[in-house]
Amino acid sequence: MTQGEEMRLGRLHWALEDSTFASMDFLNEVAERYPNAVSMAAGRPFDGFLSLESVHRRLETYHRYLESVQGLGSDRATRTLLQYGPAGGVINDLIARHLAVDEGIETEGESIVVTVGCQEAMFLVLRALRADERDLVMAVSPTYVGLSGAAKLADIPVLPVPTDETGVSLSHLASQVRQARAEGRTPRALYVMPDFANPSAVSMDLPARRALLRMAEEEDILLLEDNPYGLFHGEKARLPTLKALDRTQRVVYLGSFAKTVVPGARVGYLVADQQVEDDRGGAHPLAFYLSRLKSMLTVNTSPIAQAVVAGCLLESDFSLARANSQERAFYQRNLNHLLAGLRDRLGEFSDEVTWTSPTGGFFVVLTLPFTVDDEDLQVCADKYGVLWTPMSHFHGPDGGENQLRLSCSAISTDMIDIGLDRLRDYILSRLR
Amino acid sequence: MTQGEEMRLGRLHWALEDSTFASMDFLNEVAERYPNAVSMAAGRPFDGFLSLESVHRRLETYHRYLESVQGLGSDRATRTLLQYGPAGGVINDLIARHLAVDEGIETEGESIVVTVGCQEAMFLVLRALRADERDLVMAVSPTYVGLSGAAKLADIPVLPVPTDETGVSLSHLASQVRQARAEGRTPRALYVMPDFANPSAVSMDLPARRALLRMAEEEDILLLEDNPYGLFHGEKARLPTLKALDRTQRVVYLGSFAKTVVPGARVGYLVADQQVEDDRGGAHPLAFYLSRLKSMLTVNTSPIAQAVVAGCLLESDFSLARANSQERAFYQRNLNHLLAGLRDRLGEFSDEVTWTSPTGGFFVVLTLPFTVDDEDLQVCADKYGVLWTPMSHFHGPDGGENQLRLSCSAISTDMIDIGLDRLRDYILSRLR
Repeated sequence: MTQGEEMRLGRLHWALEDSTFASMDFLNEVAERYPNAVSMAAGRPFDGFLSLESVHRRLETYHRYLESVQGLGSDRATRTLLQYGPAGGVINDLIARHLAVDEGIETEGESIVVTVGCQEAMFLVLRALRADERDLVMAVSPTYVGLSGAAKLADIPVLPVPTDETGVSLSHLASQVRQARAEGRTPRALYVMPDFANPSAVSMDLPARRALLRMAEEEDILLLEDNPYGLFHGEKARLPTLKALDRTQRVVYLGSFAKTVVPGARVGYLVADQQVEDDRGGAHPLAFYLSRLKSMLTVNTSPIAQAVVAGCLLESDFSLARANSQERAFYQRNLNHLLAGLRDRLGEFSDEVTWTSPTGGFFVVLTLPFTVDDEDLQVCADKYGVLWTPMSHFHGPDGGENQLRLSCSAISTDMIDIGLDRLRDYILSRLR
Repeated sequence: MTQGEEMRLGRLHWALEDSTFASMDFLNEVAERYPNAVSMAAGRPFDGFLSLESVHRRLETYHRYLESVQGLGSDRATRTLLQYGPAGGVINDLIARHLAVDEGIETEGESIVVTVGCQEAMFLVLRALRADERDLVMAVSPTYVGLSGAAKLADIPVLPVPTDETGVSLSHLASQVRQARAEGRTPRALYVMPDFANPSAVSMDLPARRALLRMAEEEDILLLEDNPYGLFHGEKARLPTLKALDRTQRVVYLGSFAKTVVPGARVGYLVADQQVEDDRGGAHPLAFYLSRLKSMLTVNTSPIAQAVVAGCLLESDFSLARANSQERAFYQRNLNHLLAGLRDRLGEFSDEVTWTSPTGGFFVVLTLPFTVDDEDLQVCADKYGVLWTPMSHFHGPDGGENQLRLSCSAISTDMIDIGLDRLRDYILSRLR
């Protein structure tokens, strides 16, 4: 006897039949099929900054800190790194100090949950906010695929709110909220990436940030602020994050150390200082409850991985801006090189081909006078040897058909030049 | 304006109001309030086996393996450890070799998903099996709290199936399955721990294992086999796991490296070689789909943490039985010491006080002629200075009221003696 009826895909969680995966599979397949194509698709940090030696050193730095500065002694320090640990994390106070130094965010360790990357942080928040089938979340569109994926796994629907030149279309946000409420549904939060958004490459200016916070108050929704790229802000001074401007606990802040420490640690975090009232008149920060959900999901984030991050924070006096001075210069040079290269090669077609000009981050979005779909990407990879990401992958059924995303984080300036030469040839072949 | 109506506990995921947490909070609180009590409650591995030096060494061992044996060269080896990686894991082939060497399980890397501890593995399987509200899972009762917690977060109900002297009451299993089907519900799987179960301390013999596999066939359900303690089997030879006996892909095997490598890596895995058919006539192993869910949940398990496990596997020729020879002797000595200590101190009351006599694992369950609830634990901690776990925490609303679980993994034989002296005094005070 073999497996019965139950082993059909239709009898597993619905998200598995969702188009998100077909789309991710396709992008991965194309990348694998054309290993010699220049990849302007990958948004990962540059390989050249990876160092195993620094992992060893950071582990020792944090161990010494626990042993001597915290006064735990060697055995208890070792136990903190290698034994089971608290669900909410062990390096929370160090993250709070980093947030004060680099982000102007004043918070405490108990409002922080250390997570398995930012992805788990998104899932925890969305799962917690999904109390019943009326709850929904909104997200700037185009949307980071990790947010869409986490929402599917949490069974909470996502309503898109268009990105405009200010970052979020407030008029669309207001109308989405009101329409949802009129239909008896409950909009809980808006997911937004105010700094150098992936994939739109749009940033919000200060008045837009303040206006969004005001609207969140008025409409009584939370803001889920994701900020993986804020530290890579280029020559222009940084703007305060929504969380730094937040006076009334409207913002749940989502952070990642993948770009600022090392992707392989898989350590992220969230700041959730909202007071949640229970039925017995008590209250705890939302982070307390998210830690509880985490204890059912992954128990705790590897304290070895947390130690790698802690070591980096300790070695840089809690400033990841300082720890990443080389990286920031590298990504800035790459972005400037990409933008200058686009001007040199496509400037004369500016009536037909336009692109965003972000001052930081990893991405640039091109708008073209023709559609660029998966089939076009395949042709471009095959005949021209360059990879990019069709923006339609970050939209719902419609949107982004004539846009593509370029990334400049994972390759050298020389490769950017080669990639742009090839991209120009491809675009010219389509323009003619 | 402050937070509105939405920031009440009742407006967050229902599992957060569940009694599981109150119970876990209580046990943690008691342990914190009586730091000088001897803890026979904690089931974690012994601190004395933790070594930061071995973490450094294992990272280097795996790096060298990738560099030289796999021929990746130094840079690509570093990238494997420190860059983003595939959702399903990077050390899958090494785990498959370990399973062949230590467990007699023949499988391939592509049927394995490397997870953030066994907890994530449980959540992924339960989430995948929960296609709609009719689906449910069964679990041996008393049940490991991690399974109950994961099921709550996955919104899949758990039906208890009593543990009997064979491990699982097959008659109850059959009647649960039939009754559920008669009510239009779909029993998808049974969760079971055949070797030195936590918390019941019961193991299944070979005929019971074969009978359970046959019933899983007949009733068309999966078996979720959790095996954290099988390697600590004492003097008696090991019995084959359900997965080793499984000829028809009935068993999803759940594994943990917390006890056999190091808890702080937070690395576990699952083996899911069931073929899942899609609508287009294709098929993939269930592991393929579980990796997809994982990509939405935690993206991938920290490859640094995976490398620590891989280094241990490489250094021991893939035998964790060999790598744990000291640990196995230690836990065996502790268990024997605990059982002998119980005989010495409570043997004369064997009409009233009985206990399990497992040949391996970390736990012993005592049955008493009086109830032992949370209040009793508190009194015992306060007046007698010894901690244990009321078995009622592992049952539903009823069950285990007159039982307690003792663990012998985290303390020395000297502390076991002190703990047992105190426990005897407490029990005698209740007997009189």
